[in-house]
Amino acid sequence: MANEHAHTVSSYEQELTRLRALMTRMGGIVERQTALAVLAIVDGDVAAAHEAQVLDPQVDALERDVEALAIRLLALRAPLAGDLREIVAALKITGDLERIGDYAASVAKRSLKVEAPSSEIPLGGLRSMGRLVQENLHRTIEALSSKDVARAVEVWQSDTVVDELYTAMFRELVTYMMEDPRTIRSCTHLLFIAKNLERIGDHATNIAERVYYAATGEMLPAERPRGGGAAPKG
Amino acid sequence: MANEHAHTVSSYEQELTRLRALMTRMGGIVERQTALAVLAIVDGDVAAAHEAQVLDPQVDALERDVEALAIRLLALRAPLAGDLREIVAALKITGDLERIGDYAASVAKRSLKVEAPSSEIPLGGLRSMGRLVQENLHRTIEALSSKDVARAVEVWQSDTVVDELYTAMFRELVTYMMEDPRTIRSCTHLLFIAKNLERIGDHATNIAERVYYAATGEMLPAERPRGGGAAPKG
Repeated sequence: MANEHAHTVSSYEQELTRLRALMTRMGGIVERQTALAVLAIVDGDVAAAHEAQVLDPQVDALERDVEALAIRLLALRAPLAGDLREIVAALKITGDLERIGDYAASVAKRSLKVEAPSSEIPLGGLRSMGRLVQENLHRTIEALSSKDVARAVEVWQSDTVVDELYTAMFRELVTYMMEDPRTIRSCTHLLFIAKNLERIGDHATNIAERVYYAATGEMLPAERPRGGGAAPKG
Repeated sequence: MANEHAHTVSSYEQELTRLRALMTRMGGIVERQTALAVLAIVDGDVAAAHEAQVLDPQVDALERDVEALAIRLLALRAPLAGDLREIVAALKITGDLERIGDYAASVAKRSLKVEAPSSEIPLGGLRSMGRLVQENLHRTIEALSSKDVARAVEVWQSDTVVDELYTAMFRELVTYMMEDPRTIRSCTHLLFIAKNLERIGDHATNIAERVYYAATGEMLPAERPRGGGAAPKG
């Protein structure tokens, strides 16, 4: 019996480890998609734009794998307290990761539709947004993989800057379109690209909140620090 | 003992019923938010725009309530098979409902920023999109409340039309901005409004897929029917 018990525990630990590995892999892929999407806009890298989109089905498949494994763990192992919170958090976090992958693929797809030569379009703001969002996402995936609560709080606090950059970018692009209507089509795609980057930042913050809750059992305040009060959320 | 067992079973059923009631309530609120948001754009109804936004914290609170109750059910009742799938589906579906509420609030907020008189801006497409998205969402919430699989498949199939309307709307608004640059600011808000309505339709479809899976244990095909192939997803 002692052996059988040891076997059960070890196989439970193995399955939990596998769940964590799936999460880290999913996080790694959406981080790569986001990096590729930023290259696609900022450097006009067409190959990067294609790769970011090609990775999307892998993300969707990983979301399904995590869900199937979570259901098995819940059904067969009846986990409690911290483990249960972690499994529920995994189910919710994959939803955010899937959205991030979707937004990154959308940014990549739109980058191919920005027709005007990059010198005519103000890409400085997008470059800064892209860099910041990538940094935040990287720290989020680190916090997720290592259950690093301090890192999660860092991400949660720094989303404000992304929101402010987005609001500035929105105004800049609208002004640009008014000054030169030939840029309207490209600028509308850039508007959506900026919005999608901002949404990636928001989902990274959601994940940071969930990492914090899963690790501590406490919630961060409902109202996160927000910048760019003038811009609607969605 | 028999009584105690009966008591446990009945209290389990009560908690599952409460979970379903919370989901139906959450669905009802986001449906109302969406209806108000559509009124806000199509009729310029300022009161509706405010109400749609004011409801948002209730949706967030309900998402947390569902999560807390789901964790309790999982910890104390160790549900199996159909019940377990239903609880996991509830955890994922609240994520979609929360996003729908967010998009509706954002549509309402942006409706207040559309400055040009409505006669100058082509609202016909938004009216059709709004009506269709509302219908789809209504059927989704019905499918969710009554576990109506046939209804879920109906929603899943009809999202194509919403996507096609969105693509037409996108082209129409870009043409409009080019013809009269004074409308650029308002039209960019309308672009985001159209995109948010399209996203609400997408999330309704996600929910329909989950209702189907929770009820049958089978997944609908990974590729749903999609319209408007020209428009990026995010």
